[in-house]
Order: sequence, then C-alpha cells, then structure tokens
Amino acid sequence: MLDVYAFATPNSVKVLVALEELGLPYTLHGINVRKGEQKTPEFVSLNPNGRVPVLVDTPEEGDPFVLTESAAILVYLAEKTGRLLPAESAARARVFEQLFFHASGLSPAFGQSGFFQRFATERQPLAIERFASEATRTLSVLDGVLADRPFVAGEDFTIADIAHFGWLWRRGFPNVTFDETPHVARWYEAVEARPAVQRGIARVEALVPQD
Amino acid sequence: MLDVYAFATPNSVKVLVALEELGLPYTLHGINVRKGEQKTPEFVSLNPNGRVPVLVDTPEEGDPFVLTESAAILVYLAEKTGRLLPAESAARARVFEQLFFHASGLSPAFGQSGFFQRFATERQPLAIERFASEATRTLSVLDGVLADRPFVAGEDFTIADIAHFGWLWRRGFPNVTFDETPHVARWYEAVEARPAVQRGIARVEALVPQD
Repeated sequence: MLDVYAFATPNSVKVLVALEELGLPYTLHGINVRKGEQKTPEFVSLNPNGRVPVLVDTPEEGDPFVLTESAAILVYLAEKTGRLLPAESAARARVFEQLFFHASGLSPAFGQSGFFQRFATERQPLAIERFASEATRTLSVLDGVLADRPFVAGEDFTIADIAHFGWLWRRGFPNVTFDETPHVARWYEAVEARPAVQRGIARVEALVPQD
Repeated sequence: MLDVYAFATPNSVKVLVALEELGLPYTLHGINVRKGEQKTPEFVSLNPNGRVPVLVDTPEEGDPFVLTESAAILVYLAEKTGRLLPAESAARARVFEQLFFHASGLSPAFGQSGFFQRFATERQPLAIERFASEATRTLSVLDGVLADRPFVAGEDFTIADIAHFGWLWRRGFPNVTFDETPHVARWYEAVEARPAVQRGIARVEALVPQD
C-alpha cells in the first residue's frame, strides 16, 4: 500500500505523475505548505527535513517504509516496477545525469530565483540577478540537451523527464518562459499532453483549498 | 580506460574518493576552475554545463562515454563494480535519499552560503542569513540521521557518504563547523581516516598550483 504526502508543489507533482504513469494505486494526503503543515511535529516525524513529498510504502507484512526526496522516490518507484529507468548502463547513466542536474542545478536556481523575486522581505538585487541568470542558464543547457534527443535522457520518456517537468510546470514562480528555448518548449508540450501527467497535475491541484 | 577532469573542489573530490575506494585505475586531468578553465570551448564540449568533474569511460572498442554530474558518476561507478550501493530495495533507497538530500539540500546551501559571504560584490544581508541558516539546518538534519546509523545511509559505507564528504571537507568555505553536530563530527573523522579517502584528497590537492 502506497501513501503519498504532498501538495501542489514542483517536487510533489513529480511523484504523482510517476505513480499515474506507472498505474500504481495510492492514497494521497494533502499537506498544505502555505499553512506550514510540513513543519508540524507529526509531519517532521515522517520527514525530519520538513519537506513534501513523502512516500510511505506499507507491505502486507512488516513495517512501513518511509522515503523522502522526490527524486529518490522516483528511482524507488522505477526500480520497484522495472519501468521509466533503463537497465542498460549508458542509457541509465543519462537518466541519473539529468536527475542530478535537475536536483543540484535547475531546481535550486528556479526556487531561489522565485524566492528573491517574490518573498524576500528586503530587495537583494545581486541575489535576484544571480538566480534569475542561473535559472536562464540552466534552462538553456537543458535546451541544448533536447536539441539532440526527444526526451531529456534519450529516446524514451523516463523519470528524468518527470523530474524536470516538476519545476518547468512551475516556471511562473521564477518568471521563466520558453521564448528562447524552442526545444524545451516542444518537449514540455509533449510531456504535458500525456494523460498520466494531466492526472498527476489534477490530483495535486485539487489539494489547494478553493477559498 | 577512465579519464577524470577535476580540480580541488567539493564535487571533484567525490569522484576521486570513489575511484580510490573502488581501486579503479584512472588518469586525472586538472581543470583549474580558479582560472576559469571549465568555461573554455574545449571543456564545454565535454560538459555543456561548464562544471567539473567529468568522467570519460573509453571502452576497448567503441566510442568514449562522457558523463557529468558528480553524483551520477558515483552511481555509474558503483553500478559498474557492484560496490558501495546495496542491491536490496530499502537499503538502496536510503542511499538515493541521501544522494538527493545532498544534491538538492546541503550542497546548494553550503555553496551559496560561501558565495554570499566571500564573493558577492555587494553585501546582501538577507541572502547571507538565508543560506548560512540553511547550511546549519541541513547539517543538523544530517546529524539527526547519523544519530541512528554509523553511515549516512545505514550500516555500511556507500557512495552517499562520499557525496556528503565532498562538501563537508570544504565546510570552511561557508564557515560551517561541527561544534553543534557531534554525530556528523564522529562520522567525518571515520570517513576522513579511510586510506582511499586520503588518497583521493591528495590527488585533487596536488592539482592546485603551488605559487
């Protein structure tokens, strides 16, 4: 049995999309990060890092297995099902290369850029410029990757596409557009059109209170 | 045949330590990032992201395989040798959880904290505070992990220890200490004492011109 703790965030949507792509049944629990629910003692006992998403995989017998970090959850689900992550060494390494480029490069750039543009209590011009230009630069690197390949890690749709999709779906936060990155634009359209991706988005968007 | 392009950086040392731990022969090529050699056209043709380290694995027959992203290189080397990454599902997921916590959490916090303290051309107090406190917070999360386990992903030394070691070895850059994190201090001492870790550090330090 799979339980997912998530919200309408760039990292949460990745896990929902993967579950929908893999056709795995799961129960979704909303953690409203706008109200700080990811910092409650109950949630921090699940994830000491105080972040969504969290996956809990409870076997028929034995203890629940609690896993944090969206990309680690993607790898776990892919290896559990033998899908969305190739077995062949070089193709597989390309997936990890993109997962880590996303986690250490594009994702922090997008997140910090949005923060300093929108939430910083004092204007920090150098920080705004640093992260906005890093967001643009990493997107341009990804555009170069997609100039050669239909999907970010090669010929096939993998968990690396799902990872990049999470933050590109939320590109409005750092005010990023695809105007200068036609290959990313083409790829994004293809990924967004997948029925499982649509279902994953709908599930996390339904977690946002409509008031 | 393995070629490594690296310098005395937090991410480079990870690859050298892994190669030394695994006993794999390799040729090391210094890329002096203090002189911007990672931005030359020659290097960018290897890694369009303009970052060290890069691994080139050239088979006896066939094309060289070029791989970027230090953590993707760690996974590639571990899977190539069947070592430093457990096969069992839960133990393996703990390794990926820590690899991605390092890549998306601790590593960017340490890097940005050092940058805004040392290199920013204008003082940005809010950015300094944001990243210094995130560096301290992520280190404290890691301390909680190490309160329960000898190594970051469980009972055994894995590539996740190597990943965290890279930035903790360079903790002086963001002015981080282990004064408040005794479990991290104990773990760091044990990892640093490993002969292969010492050899990896010596190899990257020898790349720094002594003038």
